[in-house]
Amino acid sequence: MQVALVGVSGYSGMVLYRLLKQHPNVDHINLYGHSDAQPMPLKTLVPMYQKETALVRPFVAATVMAENDVCLFATSAGVTKTLALPLLQADFPVIDLSGDFRLKQPAQYEQWYHQPAAPQAALMKASYGLADLNVDLTAYVANPGCYATATLLGLAPLVQQHLIDPTSIIVDAKSGVSGAGKKLAPTSHFVAVNDNLQLYKLNQHQHIPEIMQQLQAWWSAVPALEFTTTLIPVTRGIMSSIYATAAAETTTAQVLAAFEQTYADSPFVTVLPTGMPDLKQVIGTNNCALGVNYNPVTHKIMVVSVIDNLMKGAAGQAIQNLNQLFQLPITAGLPTLPVFP
Amino acid sequence: MQVALVGVSGYSGMVLYRLLKQHPNVDHINLYGHSDAQPMPLKTLVPMYQKETALVRPFVAATVMAENDVCLFATSAGVTKTLALPLLQADFPVIDLSGDFRLKQPAQYEQWYHQPAAPQAALMKASYGLADLNVDLTAYVANPGCYATATLLGLAPLVQQHLIDPTSIIVDAKSGVSGAGKKLAPTSHFVAVNDNLQLYKLNQHQHIPEIMQQLQAWWSAVPALEFTTTLIPVTRGIMSSIYATAAAETTTAQVLAAFEQTYADSPFVTVLPTGMPDLKQVIGTNNCALGVNYNPVTHKIMVVSVIDNLMKGAAGQAIQNLNQLFQLPITAGLPTLPVFP
Amino acid sequence: MQVALVGVSGYSGMVLYRLLKQHPNVDHINLYGHSDAQPMPLKTLVPMYQKETALVRPFVAATVMAENDVCLFATSAGVTKTLALPLLQADFPVIDLSGDFRLKQPAQYEQWYHQPAAPQAALMKASYGLADLNVDLTAYVANPGCYATATLLGLAPLVQQHLIDPTSIIVDAKSGVSGAGKKLAPTSHFVAVNDNLQLYKLNQHQHIPEIMQQLQAWWSAVPALEFTTTLIPVTRGIMSSIYATAAAETTTAQVLAAFEQTYADSPFVTVLPTGMPDLKQVIGTNNCALGVNYNPVTHKIMVVSVIDNLMKGAAGQAIQNLNQLFQLPITAGLPTLPVFP
Amino acid sequence: MQVALVGVSGYSGMVLYRLLKQHPNVDHINLYGHSDAQPMPLKTLVPMYQKETALVRPFVAATVMAENDVCLFATSAGVTKTLALPLLQADFPVIDLSGDFRLKQPAQYEQWYHQPAAPQAALMKASYGLADLNVDLTAYVANPGCYATATLLGLAPLVQQHLIDPTSIIVDAKSGVSGAGKKLAPTSHFVAVNDNLQLYKLNQHQHIPEIMQQLQAWWSAVPALEFTTTLIPVTRGIMSSIYATAAAETTTAQVLAAFEQTYADSPFVTVLPTGMPDLKQVIGTNNCALGVNYNPVTHKIMVVSVIDNLMKGAAGQAIQNLNQLFQLPITAGLPTLPVFP
Repeated sequence: MQVALVGVSGYSGMVLYRLLKQHPNVDHINLYGHSDAQPMPLKTLVPMYQKETALVRPFVAATVMAENDVCLFATSAGVTKTLALPLLQADFPVIDLSGDFRLKQPAQYEQWYHQPAAPQAALMKASYGLADLNVDLTAYVANPGCYATATLLGLAPLVQQHLIDPTSIIVDAKSGVSGAGKKLAPTSHFVAVNDNLQLYKLNQHQHIPEIMQQLQAWWSAVPALEFTTTLIPVTRGIMSSIYATAAAETTTAQVLAAFEQTYADSPFVTVLPTGMPDLKQVIGTNNCALGVNYNPVTHKIMVVSVIDNLMKGAAGQAIQNLNQLFQLPITAGLPTLPVFP
Repeated sequence: MQVALVGVSGYSGMVLYRLLKQHPNVDHINLYGHSDAQPMPLKTLVPMYQKETALVRPFVAATVMAENDVCLFATSAGVTKTLALPLLQADFPVIDLSGDFRLKQPAQYEQWYHQPAAPQAALMKASYGLADLNVDLTAYVANPGCYATATLLGLAPLVQQHLIDPTSIIVDAKSGVSGAGKKLAPTSHFVAVNDNLQLYKLNQHQHIPEIMQQLQAWWSAVPALEFTTTLIPVTRGIMSSIYATAAAETTTAQVLAAFEQTYADSPFVTVLPTGMPDLKQVIGTNNCALGVNYNPVTHKIMVVSVIDNLMKGAAGQAIQNLNQLFQLPITAGLPTLPVFP
Repeated sequence: MQVALVGVSGYSGMVLYRLLKQHPNVDHINLYGHSDAQPMPLKTLVPMYQKETALVRPFVAATVMAENDVCLFATSAGVTKTLALPLLQADFPVIDLSGDFRLKQPAQYEQWYHQPAAPQAALMKASYGLADLNVDLTAYVANPGCYATATLLGLAPLVQQHLIDPTSIIVDAKSGVSGAGKKLAPTSHFVAVNDNLQLYKLNQHQHIPEIMQQLQAWWSAVPALEFTTTLIPVTRGIMSSIYATAAAETTTAQVLAAFEQTYADSPFVTVLPTGMPDLKQVIGTNNCALGVNYNPVTHKIMVVSVIDNLMKGAAGQAIQNLNQLFQLPITAGLPTLPVFP
Repeated sequence: MQVALVGVSGYSGMVLYRLLKQHPNVDHINLYGHSDAQPMPLKTLVPMYQKETALVRPFVAATVMAENDVCLFATSAGVTKTLALPLLQADFPVIDLSGDFRLKQPAQYEQWYHQPAAPQAALMKASYGLADLNVDLTAYVANPGCYATATLLGLAPLVQQHLIDPTSIIVDAKSGVSGAGKKLAPTSHFVAVNDNLQLYKLNQHQHIPEIMQQLQAWWSAVPALEFTTTLIPVTRGIMSSIYATAAAETTTAQVLAAFEQTYADSPFVTVLPTGMPDLKQVIGTNNCALGVNYNPVTHKIMVVSVIDNLMKGAAGQAIQNLNQLFQLPITAGLPTLPVFP
């Protein structure tokens, strides 16, 4: 299998490259830059990859399709839209890590991403690759956002089985700094992050509409969700702390049973029999770990969902979608034991 | 003014000692250990205080009262109860940083602290020193818990003015590791904390009953609150992220106005005109910073309340109560500019 | 290939388990505890390994040899000595991550480890598995210490080629907290480590004698080395900053050439053409990255050597020795691309 | 006393402002920007200072001298040179935190700072304010660099008393990220710093010449020093690990005695009777803590010197120089108990 990777120098691109290198079904990785720049050695772009001999070549859609079986885009929202369009139109297999083809409504994209959307017809051809739940994929897979993945996996049983008051969902999400990419900003300076917590994009995070789109696909009664994001002093990891009012008196055991049923066949989702997960138990893996609790005093269900934002929240889920798309063993090339300590 | 400090070697005790040393109205600090051990140089107990010449002497209630004008207890819950009782019975001025005299109902104490309570009559003599709101103090001041302080200051305007559905309160609180003291535990090992988030004491934190007791004093309609605690990889700092459903359609500006009114005269509470506070802006100070937001889509009010858990959440608030009790200038000896960076 | 792993619950044991699980030549891993305890599910011992079904059984030497082709010990110094002796005496293949069989002189072991040594004859049968330089292994491989590995790889070209004044070696080594294991201690509490640097075991670190033993094997003129260790607020990683006076006027290019020659054939050692390595470029890999500099003003050569203490400094090097011992491809099962970010 | 502060928005400026606010001899602080910008509220420039009402006005030399008794510059190297010249020429009291007037030779400044130097005559009028050792100050005080302060205080007894081979000095210095200021750079991004160590400016740090200038003033036989700098994942703190060959056989006790004698009268320097200092014991103070060790096997003396880079290494030492210049009590306004935890 020949795999194209566009955008290797970002965080997700680097992780994808490493995963593809050790994937048993991948014979060769072709690297492409997202500009019309000259070919450049990988180790020049990513000095940490001193011993790699690969070359990064300019992206030319026809060449990419001719040379590869599939193309993975680790480029930014806005950039992918343009580069990937010819592949989408040719029904060439694509896994797209950006947000450009996740939303079905151009107006939604424009509201949340503050730029023009891809054509509506193109948006409709893409499938939303929430890999542990959506298995019917089209050739163009829009890989979900990191916050969306953690939050949707934590909400799925509650929403699909109508276990909660659909107007009561509150998500207090926390993310490590790698989620924001390597762009320099005052908020990602070490002195600003270390020993600190910073809220950002309050009710304005661009993953909100893709969460809503999926929740409403599961249950149209969900009108909205309160979703806040706090930057924590860690490099990797997302925790979504989810609160909702139970639809009826229940127990932790009953809620747990619903989760176990939903994820019974998923090799990457762990429902903890007791307690709440910490980040460390998923870092370096493609796993999502879930803990649940029902508080009979407040009638609230709490779910804690943790993922590695660069693995399950980006590159890992992309490989899982790749495996699904090509009917490879679902765990091929995907670590499930945490890199701990 | 002669001040007794019992328990200087814990985190709160160390911070108290430093604050008292620079307090303009404190002439001398007498240090007492909480056991019947031999006198010991402070610098032996706290090697970091190499140049200090003070001695830590055994605690004897009569001596403490004879030698001092006030006694501050930075001893653990359970220990203070016994040591402080003679002082309470003699109406000697006490500021107690432990949880032993915060709850009015012995049964509550026994449920949450898993040990026998002080006598009910003694509990009734203590006043709850939430310093920015409660100014009528008795001689025995029970200094509030760190989580309780952050959470109550964030909820006060909403609850006192009935701005929210009283059944809808959810608090997602985060705390640095110093909040748990210096006791060794697997959860406070560096490798367990660094790059991680850990939930603990889910719906079982001993600050829940003191929060409820105060909320119900303000508005008896509040039946309960969902309160979760997450350990974050920072040394100091608490953030209480508070969510509640608005009682009626409102705006961020209206909510803000309620907060500004409540804290108009408080030199230690900052209501941000816009945005949400981060931890850094209060670390090293006796301040609480508050940010508020109303989300018209979900009808939720969000309040973010941050404090330094060892200052406003412990030693700083104790000094504020000391100033109040002795009618000193309220800001005497209390820093209000953050130790930043 | 059937592999025994003794001591899976420590940090090195966990990393070894993960590496062995993805090693292409390992068919099955048998886990043994180091006590005579009852069999226990792995997931009970290591809750993070929720989905693993393996059992940890008591260690019985004869059974271990009957069931396996090789045995890896991730047990502590002192414990391994006793457990491994029957295997050593039977010439059964062993990779021993402890310090029990690294030193040839029992008196040395007793001086630095403060406990009785293994019998001298047993010590002589073990080979010191500094995997990138020592390829002639006996059946019993003593895997080097983490500090020793980083320091020896950084010093080898200088010492082997007599490029320095042998009396002038100074090593200022820094290590992450995982190097000290998961035992609770005041110095590994988060509050003690975060935002701090702590020196420890000044001139008393037990890796000093194994470094000296190897240096003197290379060049008997080396009389001693100044070696200090500083604990840094990171989980993983060792940096050895090495200083020595050049034997004669030289240049950075000449020193670099010596390093490139020594490591020309090593897939795991990267000599940087320019600049100094940071920890991140080796974390998660079995690599050692080296940077060199000659300062013509001071006549000092500086070498910076970085490794992941749990990989090249423990589990990774153990796998490399396993590959070497069984003549497997040297990179089998060993990652060389960093887990970054 | 009326004090001018130029450059309040940088890290050192913020710390200076906080120290000046609580200084018993400072009646009023006048703030000046270093440009000809319009007056601006302090809280606009430094949002963390929400409750401060001060105004930052444009810097005009004549006005500054008319309105104040002394002027503190917390502006960058290059900027101070121009702004401060009229004050220097008028013999107006100045404490300058930049490097512009530390070196006596213009050529040296130009070599290490890569820009034109101040006039030689101006350089000669400035005194180097290494506050614990240099007490004869001129009106213009060049406050030492942070690395220089830690290193010189650690070397002073060894060099002044000729206890070492003057050609053998090696300094392995480590610094927190605040030392580099708040400018955005790839090396100060959280992801680059967290869990990492990064060397920088190898043998090129601009504090090297001021260290050499002072060492040679103490003992002309010192020809050079090896000085390396490593960025550590902490916000504040410098550790200088100093190595030198003893001039003659000695003992730790003898070396200690030399240090105790040198610093007998210094309220801000702590010589540890045993062990080595960690960063935490000086953070938040104007202290330097020193530990010493003689290794009879290698004949090396090791000294570890720690300071808070923003206090003793910048703003704290500036206040100490202010106190000295105006013959105020030397500890006025300067904390000596660490902000711990």
